[in-house]
Amino acid sequence: MLAPTFLLAADCERWGVYEIELKGPTAGNPFLGVNLSATFEQGDRRIDVTGFYDGDGAYRIRFCPPTTGEWSYSTVSNAAELKGKEGTFEVGALSEGNHGPVEVAHVAHFAYADGTAYKPVGTTCYAWTSQTEELQEKTLETLATAPFNKIRMCVFPKWYSWNEVDPPQYAYEGTAPNQWDFSRFNPAFFRSLEKRITQLGEMGIEVDLILLHPYDNGRWGFDNMPPEACDFYLRYIVARLGAYRNVWWSMANEWDFDKNKTRDDWTRMIGVVHDADPYGKLLGIHNGWELYDHNHPYLTHASIQNGSAAEEAGRAALYRDVYPKPILLDEVKYEGDIPLRWGNLSAEEMVHRFWEGTIAGCYVTHGECYLADDDVLWWAKGGVLKGESPQRIAFLKKVLDGSPAEGIDQIDKWQHPNIAGQPGDYYLVYLGEQTPDSWEFCLPKHDLADGMRFKVEVLDTWNMTVSPVEGEFVTKQHSQYLFKDEAGKLVDLPGKPWIALRITRVQEN
Amino acid sequence: MLAPTFLLAADCERWGVYEIELKGPTAGNPFLGVNLSATFEQGDRRIDVTGFYDGDGAYRIRFCPPTTGEWSYSTVSNAAELKGKEGTFEVGALSEGNHGPVEVAHVAHFAYADGTAYKPVGTTCYAWTSQTEELQEKTLETLATAPFNKIRMCVFPKWYSWNEVDPPQYAYEGTAPNQWDFSRFNPAFFRSLEKRITQLGEMGIEVDLILLHPYDNGRWGFDNMPPEACDFYLRYIVARLGAYRNVWWSMANEWDFDKNKTRDDWTRMIGVVHDADPYGKLLGIHNGWELYDHNHPYLTHASIQNGSAAEEAGRAALYRDVYPKPILLDEVKYEGDIPLRWGNLSAEEMVHRFWEGTIAGCYVTHGECYLADDDVLWWAKGGVLKGESPQRIAFLKKVLDGSPAEGIDQIDKWQHPNIAGQPGDYYLVYLGEQTPDSWEFCLPKHDLADGMRFKVEVLDTWNMTVSPVEGEFVTKQHSQYLFKDEAGKLVDLPGKPWIALRITRVQEN
Repeated sequence: MLAPTFLLAADCERWGVYEIELKGPTAGNPFLGVNLSATFEQGDRRIDVTGFYDGDGAYRIRFCPPTTGEWSYSTVSNAAELKGKEGTFEVGALSEGNHGPVEVAHVAHFAYADGTAYKPVGTTCYAWTSQTEELQEKTLETLATAPFNKIRMCVFPKWYSWNEVDPPQYAYEGTAPNQWDFSRFNPAFFRSLEKRITQLGEMGIEVDLILLHPYDNGRWGFDNMPPEACDFYLRYIVARLGAYRNVWWSMANEWDFDKNKTRDDWTRMIGVVHDADPYGKLLGIHNGWELYDHNHPYLTHASIQNGSAAEEAGRAALYRDVYPKPILLDEVKYEGDIPLRWGNLSAEEMVHRFWEGTIAGCYVTHGECYLADDDVLWWAKGGVLKGESPQRIAFLKKVLDGSPAEGIDQIDKWQHPNIAGQPGDYYLVYLGEQTPDSWEFCLPKHDLADGMRFKVEVLDTWNMTVSPVEGEFVTKQHSQYLFKDEAGKLVDLPGKPWIALRITRVQEN
Repeated sequence: MLAPTFLLAADCERWGVYEIELKGPTAGNPFLGVNLSATFEQGDRRIDVTGFYDGDGAYRIRFCPPTTGEWSYSTVSNAAELKGKEGTFEVGALSEGNHGPVEVAHVAHFAYADGTAYKPVGTTCYAWTSQTEELQEKTLETLATAPFNKIRMCVFPKWYSWNEVDPPQYAYEGTAPNQWDFSRFNPAFFRSLEKRITQLGEMGIEVDLILLHPYDNGRWGFDNMPPEACDFYLRYIVARLGAYRNVWWSMANEWDFDKNKTRDDWTRMIGVVHDADPYGKLLGIHNGWELYDHNHPYLTHASIQNGSAAEEAGRAALYRDVYPKPILLDEVKYEGDIPLRWGNLSAEEMVHRFWEGTIAGCYVTHGECYLADDDVLWWAKGGVLKGESPQRIAFLKKVLDGSPAEGIDQIDKWQHPNIAGQPGDYYLVYLGEQTPDSWEFCLPKHDLADGMRFKVEVLDTWNMTVSPVEGEFVTKQHSQYLFKDEAGKLVDLPGKPWIALRITRVQEN
């Protein structure tokens, strides 16, 4: 038995990876010919987990124990050496920094399985694990000080503008660039990927792992595998990575741009991943031009590209109505300077979109495309961040970290799209490009009563300052729909754009 | 046999109502105890239609023949007098003004079954058939000169602010206000409703018939019928009205405001209507605060209330992505002056919302709430229209009538939400509140090539004028994404708000 990943106490900690290694047959094609699974049990609880062949006669079953205490297992296989193996092991308490996998909470928000709120602040770095080791290390270094707690990244390499590099290794046995045996995986490729995912996990970064994507352009053919090869691959990667608590499944980037697959193919593959995953991990599918139906019951959240929805909270908020799930605006265009119009937002506009999306009750994902002599654009290859938005996104992240666990929701969606929070307790008011000199304290009536006390802070979202406003504001009903300060107090503002207000209930003693 | 409704030639015209009347049992409760249906056949085509009891021993089966020529029928019943009745009849060609039922066309648009485009320009008059005969006649008189070709109206009466009137008759046998036998319908009630629906049909108005609604407030109990009574009612009304070509089914107004029913109840009832309707008529469900999932396969279109989506095309256009169906913005607030914030839009704002919604590729529905001494607000009771938007909506309707049958679609949705049409052929550019002095001829590249010739008209959507711009504009590629006029020509504008441009391809000889 190998040392379980994330091992810190007992045999394995809760939501760590408990790994069983077994030696088994090497004849024929073990990927195809050998089945292996284990049933893990604790009391009445029973979880069936599929194992996988890891090359050189090694078979592994990886289990993510959801509870502490003693668990037992027994294996099932069509190979004599692998079947009927039994054992027990002790699952210890969480170590620091381990909050378990992220799950949906409060309808459209997230929490770790231990109940800690998780507010995704993601970035996009599609093919960073397909770059040189040196560049991968650089990317990790950058992420170590960046604000991001989620990354969208692909399993397969990317062949595209500024991305015409073969990866150091491939997922399959065969001959590069395009002679592959889709029935034989290259375990070394997956071990490298797992190492990176583990490193990201140690940094507190969730991996929104893009299982398939259309950016192959005839180079390797990974976007054009036959359906049975797709399904075989999906089951293999779920078996390998399902136990990693920081992994989410993203079926595709721009699913509809993959002209080799139909909508029905994607529906089938969503089913394959769903059925293969014993943990019900987060599962999404990201679009190009055409949305997949995010109300599909297997999809846990909506992963949406829209180049204009985050320009204004009133737009993005519409998604909250149509999908009663978390809304991740996973591509809102990129900060950068490339000539393509999806890749040349100013930093101000990127930060603005983060705020508008947040106020809409959604979560925005960062991306960056600055031209570089070495063609290393963060968007796809990683490296270093050159933009000015990440530090402002860090500022927003700090705001989010201090916001209610219940999430930021629109409060009076058809009237005040720029006000969100949790009514009666916490409000963010975002003024965007407006540059008023003052803001009249005025909130929608929801959960308000006369005499409630609030403190107000002025946030300069670009200059990253928090300025508390002196005194308190005390609510008084002003009309059928609105409460104002009882003395009609205004909040002085600096007359600059990108100002937000944070309004927090003063708790009575 | 009664004279078939809409009868003009042969025994019945195509998409008319062919009605079989039979005499049958009166003992017991015929609504409950007697089953009756007929199979209509023409060649290989076979349509099963359920009949209904119309009181006084009369049973009817209504059939809407989709093709001309000879049809035959034979009846099935558990009553000896009704079963095994056979006959043939001749279906004649369409009379003028009969284009058949409206169907979905071009994904998100509509056409009559004969192929004629149908662009809904609807109004809302919830309870007009529950008013006095005199007021109903007045409403019809108003509709005769109004621009509307669709009306949202309820079967059941409405008890609500400004609506505290008992209707002249009820759908059930029993004692007003709330002692009803939900197993015995009052045929006279339905005959009156049918008369109004027929009159609307003769005026070219589609009836989006609201089958259930929550505005009962304990008065009559029609929002609180047991599930089996709901289903019984739905099957009865579908049997009575399914053959009326101008009827659409609207399951509910504000489905989520009916606290007596769950989402599952609505799903069940959608199934009841779908299964009962042999024609697959248009079927929608309208929301209060919470959307039903309009991707449900039985729903033919999305009927949406949203108080802010139509403020700006970039908002409403998001619905087009999530529901690949026609989007009807069936409540965008009301033109009027009531103190409730959903009912006091200015006429300008109502017209603006029609234009923004249109440019978004959706269809907006009108409503009006002007206070009146007699409490007759168009919104619910009908009567006369007092607002200033209808004539401007008539102007828009004329524009729509001259627009491509394929509908108005966003052309480059993330970049130019104010430009829509059919690329290469027809564009509407709407400038809303902006008051520029000129507009540079500039269109997204889709389906354009150098040297294409366009004429431009300036539409003042408020003053209802069309001003052709002299000369032609000739396309020349300006950038990766845009075409402009080859001579850089501008369109002079009047510097007023609510201006639109209509840009039409000049066909080569």
